[in-house]
Amino acid sequence: MRKIHVIGIGSGDPRQLTLQAVGALRGTDVFFLLDKGEAKSDLTQLRRDMLDAHLPAGAYRVVEARDPERDRAAGGSAYSPAVGDWRSARAGIYERMIAEELGEDETGAFLVWGDPALYDSTLGILEEVLERCAVAFEYDVVPGVSSVSALVARHRTGLNRVARPVQITTGRRLAEGFPEGVDDVVVMLDAHQTFRRYADEDIDIYWGAYIGTPDEILVSGPLAEAAPEIERVRAEARERKGWIMDTYLLRRNPGRR
Amino acid sequence: MRKIHVIGIGSGDPRQLTLQAVGALRGTDVFFLLDKGEAKSDLTQLRRDMLDAHLPAGAYRVVEARDPERDRAAGGSAYSPAVGDWRSARAGIYERMIAEELGEDETGAFLVWGDPALYDSTLGILEEVLERCAVAFEYDVVPGVSSVSALVARHRTGLNRVARPVQITTGRRLAEGFPEGVDDVVVMLDAHQTFRRYADEDIDIYWGAYIGTPDEILVSGPLAEAAPEIERVRAEARERKGWIMDTYLLRRNPGRR
Ligand SMILES: C[S@@+](CC[C@H](N)C(=O)[O-])C[C@H]1O[C@@H](n2cnc3c(N)ncnc32)[C@H](O)[C@@H]1O
Ligand SMILES: C[S@@+](CC[C@H](N)C(=O)[O-])C[C@H]1O[C@@H](n2cnc3c(N)ncnc32)[C@H](O)[C@@H]1O
Repeated sequence: MRKIHVIGIGSGDPRQLTLQAVGALRGTDVFFLLDKGEAKSDLTQLRRDMLDAHLPAGAYRVVEARDPERDRAAGGSAYSPAVGDWRSARAGIYERMIAEELGEDETGAFLVWGDPALYDSTLGILEEVLERCAVAFEYDVVPGVSSVSALVARHRTGLNRVARPVQITTGRRLAEGFPEGVDDVVVMLDAHQTFRRYADEDIDIYWGAYIGTPDEILVSGPLAEAAPEIERVRAEARERKGWIMDTYLLRRNPGRR
Repeated sequence: MRKIHVIGIGSGDPRQLTLQAVGALRGTDVFFLLDKGEAKSDLTQLRRDMLDAHLPAGAYRVVEARDPERDRAAGGSAYSPAVGDWRSARAGIYERMIAEELGEDETGAFLVWGDPALYDSTLGILEEVLERCAVAFEYDVVPGVSSVSALVARHRTGLNRVARPVQITTGRRLAEGFPEGVDDVVVMLDAHQTFRRYADEDIDIYWGAYIGTPDEILVSGPLAEAAPEIERVRAEARERKGWIMDTYLLRRNPGRR
């Protein structure tokens, strides 16, 4: 039976790899790397460097595939169907890669950014591949340090306040309104600096870009003051590198801490 | 200047340690272990085993302290003040330990279960110690794999569904009602199996106890069916071991996935 590891590799700092992840890397014959195109190839390179650092050369194979272009322009309620189409396209690619490149008794691996449980499609796609019944395999998941954990570690703060909840959401959701029933909200996948919408509220922000990498930028403080600074450094960094990955925690009414 | 690492050590499986955590262990002179009494000393033992596994004997010191007993009986709105008192008591202990046991040029460490960002008081207490101004130190945080990440990895599912939010909350909060605006809710610190309240709703549960340890138990399925099974295995395990740590994800209306 073919085996597949879905390995969380941390979100930027190669030292975020767990011992379990290193063990899984060492037990892998074939690595499937999905190139998401453009500047994100920096992230593919980081994965290759991890393999170089932990595995003897020649001990493994790498299969690269080009990720089907996701329709990023699809807005609002069109988001879910667009994701669906793209997910099916990706399932077809995964299916072929696994069937053609992984021997019956071999172990393959997908190296997933951060923690595979957060805003990542790998598990859903593998389930879809299994449902198609064209190729059989077992798989397991190696949890990783998410960019959420990395963000708050760098800011030396917690995700939740004592005995209170925290919500993790997307920029798109935040644009619909501040979530109900929580005062601590982590925002991912925000291309539009949606936090600016809330700059007149009593909110602290803990923001980070390229967390864990040499390009890391951190800004925190009352939103009204921090927002313009984040706008500035974010635009600058994005211009310089050609892409940006940022995440932030909004903490409303810190007086109640 | 004294230095302190707050190190997330993962939530049960010693292989969840990150390379960064191992590096921080190796750079530490003095480990502060807080014994929370009773059966939780199993968890203190796990920490000691980690030190044995990664550090040469004699290369470090261990300072043990007894955690001030937390008033677990304090219910409802009394929770926060009770936490406050207990936190101050603990700050006093930390302050003395750091001042008396850590040399001016030495590095100390607290080994925090899971990820220091989730329902853990260490960062808050260190801030309180600093505010008292009786002892000065620098500190950093090494993020870890939380029991939340470990839970969903073992169940091979994600925390959020595509483009949707997830909330992390406590059993006490869940008892007040299902959180607004989210259908995916992770519950920690639940001594009362509060999920039973929702057994007649269209909800799937992914439950785990002692995740990552040899005692790990996993149960998942529609809540109506899984709830009685969880009650049974939980009571059994608790009886056998004398303590239990469990976490679960509630996923409402899985049809919308
Ligand atoms: C598709 S999601 C994947 C998240 C990933 N599974 C994790 O656990 O971090 C990508 C989003 O994660 C966040 N992100 C990932 N890595 C980051 C980093 N190094 N610094 C800041 N944000 C990051 C950004 O919000 C980005 O839009
Ligand atoms: C005080 S909180 C600390 C959480 C920790 N910082 C983390 O990241 O997992 C303790 C709660 O975490 C959960 N927990 C921690 N370790 C666990 C494990 N191995 N299995 C199941 N639940 C666990 C339980 O809900 C428990 O009540």
